[in-house]
Amino acid sequence: MPPYPAPEWAVTQWFNSAPLSPDSLRGRIIVLGAFQMLCPGCVAHGLPQLQRVEQTFSREEVAVVGLHTVFEHHAAMTPVALEAFLHEYRIGFPVGVDTHTDPAGPPVTMQRYKLRGTPSLILIDRLGQVRHDAFGQEPDLALGARIAMLLAEGSGAEVAVSDQQEQPNCTIEGGCN
Amino acid sequence: MPPYPAPEWAVTQWFNSAPLSPDSLRGRIIVLGAFQMLCPGCVAHGLPQLQRVEQTFSREEVAVVGLHTVFEHHAAMTPVALEAFLHEYRIGFPVGVDTHTDPAGPPVTMQRYKLRGTPSLILIDRLGQVRHDAFGQEPDLALGARIAMLLAEGSGAEVAVSDQQEQPNCTIEGGCN
Amino acid sequence: MPPYPAPEWAVTQWFNSAPLSPDSLRGRIIVLGAFQMLCPGCVAHGLPQLQRVEQTFSREEVAVVGLHTVFEHHAAMTPVALEAFLHEYRIGFPVGVDTHTDPAGPPVTMQRYKLRGTPSLILIDRLGQVRHDAFGQEPDLALGARIAMLLAEGSGAEVAVSDQQEQPNCTIEGGCN
Amino acid sequence: MPPYPAPEWAVTQWFNSAPLSPDSLRGRIIVLGAFQMLCPGCVAHGLPQLQRVEQTFSREEVAVVGLHTVFEHHAAMTPVALEAFLHEYRIGFPVGVDTHTDPAGPPVTMQRYKLRGTPSLILIDRLGQVRHDAFGQEPDLALGARIAMLLAEGSGAEVAVSDQQEQPNCTIEGGCN
Repeated sequence: MPPYPAPEWAVTQWFNSAPLSPDSLRGRIIVLGAFQMLCPGCVAHGLPQLQRVEQTFSREEVAVVGLHTVFEHHAAMTPVALEAFLHEYRIGFPVGVDTHTDPAGPPVTMQRYKLRGTPSLILIDRLGQVRHDAFGQEPDLALGARIAMLLAEGSGAEVAVSDQQEQPNCTIEGGCN
Repeated sequence: MPPYPAPEWAVTQWFNSAPLSPDSLRGRIIVLGAFQMLCPGCVAHGLPQLQRVEQTFSREEVAVVGLHTVFEHHAAMTPVALEAFLHEYRIGFPVGVDTHTDPAGPPVTMQRYKLRGTPSLILIDRLGQVRHDAFGQEPDLALGARIAMLLAEGSGAEVAVSDQQEQPNCTIEGGCN
Repeated sequence: MPPYPAPEWAVTQWFNSAPLSPDSLRGRIIVLGAFQMLCPGCVAHGLPQLQRVEQTFSREEVAVVGLHTVFEHHAAMTPVALEAFLHEYRIGFPVGVDTHTDPAGPPVTMQRYKLRGTPSLILIDRLGQVRHDAFGQEPDLALGARIAMLLAEGSGAEVAVSDQQEQPNCTIEGGCN
Repeated sequence: MPPYPAPEWAVTQWFNSAPLSPDSLRGRIIVLGAFQMLCPGCVAHGLPQLQRVEQTFSREEVAVVGLHTVFEHHAAMTPVALEAFLHEYRIGFPVGVDTHTDPAGPPVTMQRYKLRGTPSLILIDRLGQVRHDAFGQEPDLALGARIAMLLAEGSGAEVAVSDQQEQPNCTIEGGCN
């Protein structure tokens, strides 16, 4: 896709953060994850992946931002419900509530980014240009690569890694454990 | 645990069913699953397991019943929110909303069954006796065995088997699929 | 399927056990798992399921037995290789090596039980009758039920459970953890 | 880690390829995966990850190479057994058999790269320099990022994405599918 300037976020309320905008995050890669708290694919895949992104990259370099783009069941997915959801699922990155004005349509930011549903993922480069979007499940390998390609534009930043899981491995000294 | 008569369910509202009670289901094994819609362990394990139980056993022999035992975040987990949740997660078995009267404590049915949290699982035999309860994740192998042991008391029923789910996403046009 | 007497096992070598036969295990339910050490579905599903069966039921009541039914790549899946495999995968239940005489066909026991491939699962009741067989992946819920139905024939044995995994649960006292 | 020139590979036999060397692959990123066919962590994580790398990146840009670094159970993990393993697990990338000369120690290439066990992962840049090694499970997000950082050194290559596997069983008639 050809790059284009990241549209403004029309957010009515922020959780885990003061208000943010593509401009206020200029200089960092933004990984913007659109979700709904009652979307099964978001809960099973989209949001855990955003958490892994947050743990894998330096927060000075990569900003993970959630966007609650409710386009159905509005009475269920209120800001109060979202706050409880974020607490229970231990989501610590900033999450904005997308503005909903058109009763029959998707919320404002979702329209601006022409998203087809949730979960959706948008990558914005250091200059504030949208460089990639994906609807549905994006494999971690490809997402890691895409983020790093954006990181590499310019200073050639380093990638910090953490959160390595325990797995049965075989060591020269001690067999498999 | 020694068997004891299944306490009545204090339910304010039923989804997917007319009102039910241990008495009205007498003659069938009841697999009662207590959950909260914003409990991660319920969403990841407890509820999918109840769906598998429903698919594995004959509905004439085994009745799966959900109980929404909200003990925190009451403003988020309303009946309206639950209805949307059940729709999005494609939960088709009966679900009752446990009555909440004590602002500081768990709901009424949860207290009657002395449940410690969610997810919890209760097995009630054909005579209306509570025979097993478990808090947390019960392995499928053990649960399948426990249900069958109760089925075998009496006529020696047969076990029907069928299979699996796919991963859903939510689209603007077409809901979740 | 109609029950039939369990055919003898034509085993050239046993691991983790002295020689066994359907007769020597009479009085116990036998869960017989046919596998090949280089069969991906056996490694990913069949063998871990047999390990879970072993952990879930009492060994006095339920005997888990593996059968190495090599029908291809004979030079690779030798008894020496199998021994290393059992060690690395920490398989502690008895495993017999099925006798191979027909260069073009499956091994002897595999033929006697008319198995179509690996992994296959066979359930033998306390009287030595084959009561169930399945080719491919059998869901844990259904398998647990089938084993318990056989256990319930006769004395009505109890089911012992162990190996409950850690999962994020919500407690009344302490929120979700 | 400071970069250093990739040591030669002491390989006695190649599968899926004519003989390869770091020199012969100069100009491409090399993802070198050390494994043993009977190492559970290699089968469950290391090798599927290498397959995903192969599917995610262009083969003109990223070369996936397996190295069978047997340091135990030598009688089980022979080249004949490895060939069957590669066939059954549908591993199509080049795999070299590391030379074993010291009965008490690890094979030659494994020593040259100072690997501690299996699975291990080594990244070699376009100039033939070792830039990263990891023992155990490396998360996909981090690995994708590391590969892309190396790709970005120079021309700024593009990242191609594709997708997933199914679960195989082995049949008498038709091999594994």
